[in-house]
Amino acid sequence: MVKLFCPATIANLSCGFDVLGLCLESVGDEMLVTKTTRKGVVIKEIVGADLPLEAEKNVAGVAAMAMIEALGLDFGVEITLYKNIKAGSGIGSSAASAAGAVVGINEMLYKPLPRKALVPFAMQGEKLASGAAHADNVAPALLGGFTLIRSYEPLDVIKMHTPPDLYATVIHPQIELKTADSRSIIKQQVSLKKAIQQWGNVGGFVCGLYTEDYALIGNSLQDHIVEPLRAMLIPHFEEVKQAALANGALGCGISGSGPSIFSLCKGESNARKVAQAMHEVYKDIGVAFDIHVSGVNDDGVRVMQVD
Amino acid sequence: MVKLFCPATIANLSCGFDVLGLCLESVGDEMLVTKTTRKGVVIKEIVGADLPLEAEKNVAGVAAMAMIEALGLDFGVEITLYKNIKAGSGIGSSAASAAGAVVGINEMLYKPLPRKALVPFAMQGEKLASGAAHADNVAPALLGGFTLIRSYEPLDVIKMHTPPDLYATVIHPQIELKTADSRSIIKQQVSLKKAIQQWGNVGGFVCGLYTEDYALIGNSLQDHIVEPLRAMLIPHFEEVKQAALANGALGCGISGSGPSIFSLCKGESNARKVAQAMHEVYKDIGVAFDIHVSGVNDDGVRVMQVD
Repeated sequence: MVKLFCPATIANLSCGFDVLGLCLESVGDEMLVTKTTRKGVVIKEIVGADLPLEAEKNVAGVAAMAMIEALGLDFGVEITLYKNIKAGSGIGSSAASAAGAVVGINEMLYKPLPRKALVPFAMQGEKLASGAAHADNVAPALLGGFTLIRSYEPLDVIKMHTPPDLYATVIHPQIELKTADSRSIIKQQVSLKKAIQQWGNVGGFVCGLYTEDYALIGNSLQDHIVEPLRAMLIPHFEEVKQAALANGALGCGISGSGPSIFSLCKGESNARKVAQAMHEVYKDIGVAFDIHVSGVNDDGVRVMQVD
Repeated sequence: MVKLFCPATIANLSCGFDVLGLCLESVGDEMLVTKTTRKGVVIKEIVGADLPLEAEKNVAGVAAMAMIEALGLDFGVEITLYKNIKAGSGIGSSAASAAGAVVGINEMLYKPLPRKALVPFAMQGEKLASGAAHADNVAPALLGGFTLIRSYEPLDVIKMHTPPDLYATVIHPQIELKTADSRSIIKQQVSLKKAIQQWGNVGGFVCGLYTEDYALIGNSLQDHIVEPLRAMLIPHFEEVKQAALANGALGCGISGSGPSIFSLCKGESNARKVAQAMHEVYKDIGVAFDIHVSGVNDDGVRVMQVD
């Protein structure tokens, strides 16, 4: 039996649509994965969310089956999920489950695989959840810290340097916003001018991580392509963003495909101040919301206990 | 009197159209800049190239005038240019002259400006040369090493880390290819899918520089947007590229707006091998060409002598 902490993640990080991601420290699910002599994957129980128990309809189940099948393992698993990350929140709820399942199985192997080798299995869970086998949440969930998907064909996932003093603030407005809907609003053609601004900012963001230049990280957290289209789907997005920036956030944008809004901050106390400012914007508008403040989880999915 | 070495530069570096640049060690012009009590800029002589002597039609002259005017300097300069970098070669001939002129004047100031502050003046020279005040050659010429233009508005130029063992090979086919023509072939709309590949590679390239991961640098040297359109303007581009890669180059692409083709290599001996392979492709096709092998110049324009 393996007990796991399965972290929430922030994909895109404004400038890096479909390529950048970040793993959170203090927001996540828990999961129990138990080895069974009987082959196959059973989702035993899901606590805290109304999600399918059929393994082939469950992201953890699909990821687990993909790994078991690819490696030809001669055992099966039973999975119990304790969900804290709300489905559809935009902070990687499905990725946390997919990543947790494959790390759990990996612990049962005689020669565990490196975390990077688990990414393709977890991506199969994402394919079930959103229709696309994207890696921008499962990569940070598995590797921790800040990750870059340089390429999908071939898959090339890079874990980057984590500056010590970065904290994230996330507000999750509890509206329903499906990833598929949020993707359909994006235009498939973009202006070269905006694309150049975007890759300038991706370059700047990566420089900022390696040189621990917080101002550069903040300046690079700009999205000229996706945010202008998606922001309208999120209630009071602009006010939350302006409040975050006015209170010292390095940058603020849409987490993944939304509706969560994230900010990156230098220092925990600033992140708490920004959380308070976000709270002020939302407290009277009649939309339920959660707010999280979190450091960066540099490890990814954590194995908490092995029996 | 200030004597300067004004280096050639490689802009774009495949993935980083309009944002990335690299300064070369062993290819460049020389320049003499002499302080005059009479105000104004005089181009005294140009050796090695047929370029305008009227200061307002000469990139060095325009850059010098922009700096003198912006700073309200009470002196003038006479400039003598010894051109080695051929105009229209795609390795920053105009940028070398513009950068050299402003560094020369900077040496005459009581309180010289930091190199970054000189970029906007040198950009005025580029505006004369190509119609656009771009910085992707003047930034590496002034700062040295690898540079990133994160943003133009506001201008944000970053000097990145230089891995110790990188060498460049450049072949310059002596065909005429004007920057304006080379730019007009580019489409102003690009597919989001290709843009994502491009910014994944920009991120990978910057990671590769900071972690000195030569394989990652090579994998990131891909251009899905501009090279497929421009390559047809350069004789035997694909054969040169394949020859370079087959001989161990990390990557190979169009230098700036062409027609020069560059490769990056790990180690000088590999760069020389790649140069030989490029030579083999071009030796019998009836187009005159130059080949350069160079390390990375981490300083930018060099002040060789001050009298």
